[in-house]
Amino acid sequence: MQKNGLLGQLIQGLCCLPGVGPKTAQRMAFQLLQHNRNGARLLAETLLRAIDEIGYCRECRTLTEDSLCGICADSSRDSSLICIVENPADVWIIDQAAVFKGRYFVLHGRLSPLDGIGPDELGLDILEQRLATGSVNELILATSSTVEGEATAYFIGELAGKYHVQASRIAHGVPMGGELEFIDSGTLSHAFNGRKQI
Amino acid sequence: MQKNGLLGQLIQGLCCLPGVGPKTAQRMAFQLLQHNRNGARLLAETLLRAIDEIGYCRECRTLTEDSLCGICADSSRDSSLICIVENPADVWIIDQAAVFKGRYFVLHGRLSPLDGIGPDELGLDILEQRLATGSVNELILATSSTVEGEATAYFIGELAGKYHVQASRIAHGVPMGGELEFIDSGTLSHAFNGRKQI
Repeated sequence: MQKNGLLGQLIQGLCCLPGVGPKTAQRMAFQLLQHNRNGARLLAETLLRAIDEIGYCRECRTLTEDSLCGICADSSRDSSLICIVENPADVWIIDQAAVFKGRYFVLHGRLSPLDGIGPDELGLDILEQRLATGSVNELILATSSTVEGEATAYFIGELAGKYHVQASRIAHGVPMGGELEFIDSGTLSHAFNGRKQI
Repeated sequence: MQKNGLLGQLIQGLCCLPGVGPKTAQRMAFQLLQHNRNGARLLAETLLRAIDEIGYCRECRTLTEDSLCGICADSSRDSSLICIVENPADVWIIDQAAVFKGRYFVLHGRLSPLDGIGPDELGLDILEQRLATGSVNELILATSSTVEGEATAYFIGELAGKYHVQASRIAHGVPMGGELEFIDSGTLSHAFNGRKQI
């Protein structure tokens, strides 16, 4: 059982998956080879196709195999409402929750001048062009609640103001079913500052 | 972001990995597509090659891409000492511990008459032929310590006795660094019954 054999290479290859270390990779390799070669073949072929075909939507910059993603191509969605997110994964998660029926715009990061990530790296020039057309009524800022995420939201809010487009920030606070004793102080402070009259 | 798109297919494909549910598969798909397409391509290609090329060693029945695995082909290993294990994964793990310098024999299961798994399904006819040649001095039985594993070990022990080959069972007891308060009663009973004079 040499480490440089094909089995060793497969175990090493599986380690490129996030959250998978050598032990888990071992278990995966043996499980696939012994019990699920069909599933493994389908996975490998889908992965190759995905790597070759999936690019970015020309409108919202999310991951898609078409030049225009399913959401941007869906004429039943409200194109005057744009949700700004940091990653394609955020689009996937918000869309699964089915709470939002507008369009998205993916930044692929957040403003971080020290790392050389400015407005142009986030595609804000493209967003600005869209705002300038006057077709957008509201931007919903769903960037993360980190310092950079807040700064990015603030920057985009200013940009929206310049074109008299309304901008809103998603609410931050105690999650549904969250017990107060397990909530961190940052979230608690958000929850108290953002309290609503009932 | 349609579920039946290529991205959705990739997420579904990743769910065939053991221990990976929809949330983890989502995270893996986005991570690979956004940050590690080269690693993903290498993984997919290695997986396809492994599925096509990896079969079973004609001597010890472990997983290998050659007709004779690296261990059986290694003439420096003691071929008179055979360690009997249930799965190819056990060969990999024992060999990584580098405590054993003999050969292996993989059963691919354990005796379970109710499931229709008898001696022939475990390749014990092949093992018996090897014992009959007189080239084997000792069998080390490393089957699992379940009822079926113990029964399988007992059965193979009897077989060895028929050909006057020594058979031994690996020790079961408290693992190194194991704290007694976290050890189950079955293991403790093994540890007491298998105690050694010091």
